Amino acid sequence: MPELRKDPVLGRWVIVSTERGKRPSDFNIEPEATEKKGCPFCEGSEDKTPPEIFAFRDPNSKPNTPNWEVRVVSNKFPVLRVEGDLEKQGVGMYDRMNGIGAHEVIIETPDHFKKMEMLPIDSLVKVLETYKIRSLDLMNDARFRYILIFKNEGIAAGATLSHSHSQLIATPVTPKRVKEELDGAKEYFQYKDRCVFCDMIREEMQHKIRVVYENKDFIAYCPFASRFPFELSILPKRHYPDYHNIQPNELVSLADMLKVTLTKLSKALNKPQYNFIVHTAPVRRPRSGYWTTIDYDFHWHIELMPRLTKVAGFEWGTGFYINPTVPEEAAKFLQETKI
Amino acid sequence: MPELRKDPVLGRWVIVSTERGKRPSDFNIEPEATEKKGCPFCEGSEDKTPPEIFAFRDPNSKPNTPNWEVRVVSNKFPVLRVEGDLEKQGVGMYDRMNGIGAHEVIIETPDHFKKMEMLPIDSLVKVLETYKIRSLDLMNDARFRYILIFKNEGIAAGATLSHSHSQLIATPVTPKRVKEELDGAKEYFQYKDRCVFCDMIREEMQHKIRVVYENKDFIAYCPFASRFPFELSILPKRHYPDYHNIQPNELVSLADMLKVTLTKLSKALNKPQYNFIVHTAPVRRPRSGYWTTIDYDFHWHIELMPRLTKVAGFEWGTGFYINPTVPEEAAKFLQETKI
Repeated sequence: MPELRKDPVLGRWVIVSTERGKRPSDFNIEPEATEKKGCPFCEGSEDKTPPEIFAFRDPNSKPNTPNWEVRVVSNKFPVLRVEGDLEKQGVGMYDRMNGIGAHEVIIETPDHFKKMEMLPIDSLVKVLETYKIRSLDLMNDARFRYILIFKNEGIAAGATLSHSHSQLIATPVTPKRVKEELDGAKEYFQYKDRCVFCDMIREEMQHKIRVVYENKDFIAYCPFASRFPFELSILPKRHYPDYHNIQPNELVSLADMLKVTLTKLSKALNKPQYNFIVHTAPVRRPRSGYWTTIDYDFHWHIELMPRLTKVAGFEWGTGFYINPTVPEEAAKFLQETKI
Repeated sequence: MPELRKDPVLGRWVIVSTERGKRPSDFNIEPEATEKKGCPFCEGSEDKTPPEIFAFRDPNSKPNTPNWEVRVVSNKFPVLRVEGDLEKQGVGMYDRMNGIGAHEVIIETPDHFKKMEMLPIDSLVKVLETYKIRSLDLMNDARFRYILIFKNEGIAAGATLSHSHSQLIATPVTPKRVKEELDGAKEYFQYKDRCVFCDMIREEMQHKIRVVYENKDFIAYCPFASRFPFELSILPKRHYPDYHNIQPNELVSLADMLKVTLTKLSKALNKPQYNFIVHTAPVRRPRSGYWTTIDYDFHWHIELMPRLTKVAGFEWGTGFYINPTVPEEAAKFLQETKI
């Protein structure tokens, strides 16, 4: 059973993944599996994954057989386990709980060689709808406080299989970084009585110098204080805190947005490895105190980060980042990248 | 002039390094320069660095000539510039200031092939004393709030030259992560009336299951909630908040501590790349309010992180880490590593 442990100074929870238990000799860099042969995510290899949780598939086909478009399975090496109780307890002066949670893989396409931006819009819509469907389902489990949706593309970005996939982790605690965003957004709202994200959208749309792409429902721009070169923020123009409340027409706009921005990044930066993270509000919100204003002050968004630079020690240790590319120049370059 | 930009949600400052201005084609991975030939940090190549700021050298030798043991120069590609005013200003809804600061390189040895752990104790003491001397000097500049001391060893850890060196960055803002530690330590102190770091030292010395090495003045252990495999915390047993108040006898103990722990890591993990960061209190502290309890509740320490695992997107985005090695097992392994 993996364990969640809390840092007594920073309040940060860490997953100590006991079952993966690595010895020093285990840390040789494993190359990303790029071969189609033996890929467990390919159509026809459904028996090589844990059982299917959900799929968009031919209505005449059976689960765990071919003829699907998007397929969700449990992660074969989950960082959190779905069975059991949290058993929160102290260990000396420290705090721990069982590593309870869900860890799912969203296989975005049956085709081994199709990257996310190469999918047709209607397939991308199904991927994004799958995020929503799985979030709504996992929300029913009262043990989960937060649902993380993210994608690692490429080995430097943490992927171990090259077949295009996203991941979902449901956690029993709200991650520290999410809390910080909620706190920051709340503080801004208390001061200005406006959503900081709505304000940023207005600011960016007015000047356009950092905007990379815009459609009816979404905007993508290089944030003013980008940590990384060519980092992008993608925000819905409509104010709402929860990804799972995305509407059908907005799913189509978001699919267009991801297809355009990922294609631009791919062309401009020669298929960079990247991560994206959906920043959505916690699914479990008490009715009073701290959380009550989330509906007004938080606005879900996607953080998209090409992995171009190395992060050195002091960035880890201090939260102080050095970005060697001016965001306005990155935006201009991406604006001008033809797709 | 580099620019400091503030994230309006998280309050995080980012250095946008305009002069390094990277275009997409600049992001090919540069190999670490490991050759002695052409190394600007070697004895005899003193003219290849910016002028010497400080050195431990033969009293009969002149600055910027051979016959030194430790040498401090400005970084040739500084992320912050020492000349000028901060010129804090708003840009639309955002905040920025000039990238004023100091960025120095501490060349730890004239010998190209000596890694830090290979230095004799008296040379290591001079390196650690140099950290103190440079901190005390830079504190006099009223524009600086924080002095970061850190080391990147190896290209994956962010080093661009293999010749052993540390770095120092004086910043006009207190880094977010430092503030978080101060806040966490203060909160614990308010609740318990004890320093959280002193409590951790007592806890670790009592059980010994995570302790890797201990001498008269210092203790090294794998933290209970380690983010990374074989991560180490190194703390002075005496409670004091500022590295620059380290005493001569403690410098000798710290040199011994670093030599032992770095040698153990080198043997156990086959010369891993690593980062260490000195977590010390801000140098500029108002006399009232927020900061007043720092002398009681903060305790300087070193965070030492071998770079064995990749950090994926959701760890960046959420502050949620997955550690595949149980800290107690890492500690046992390092305890048993003969040096």
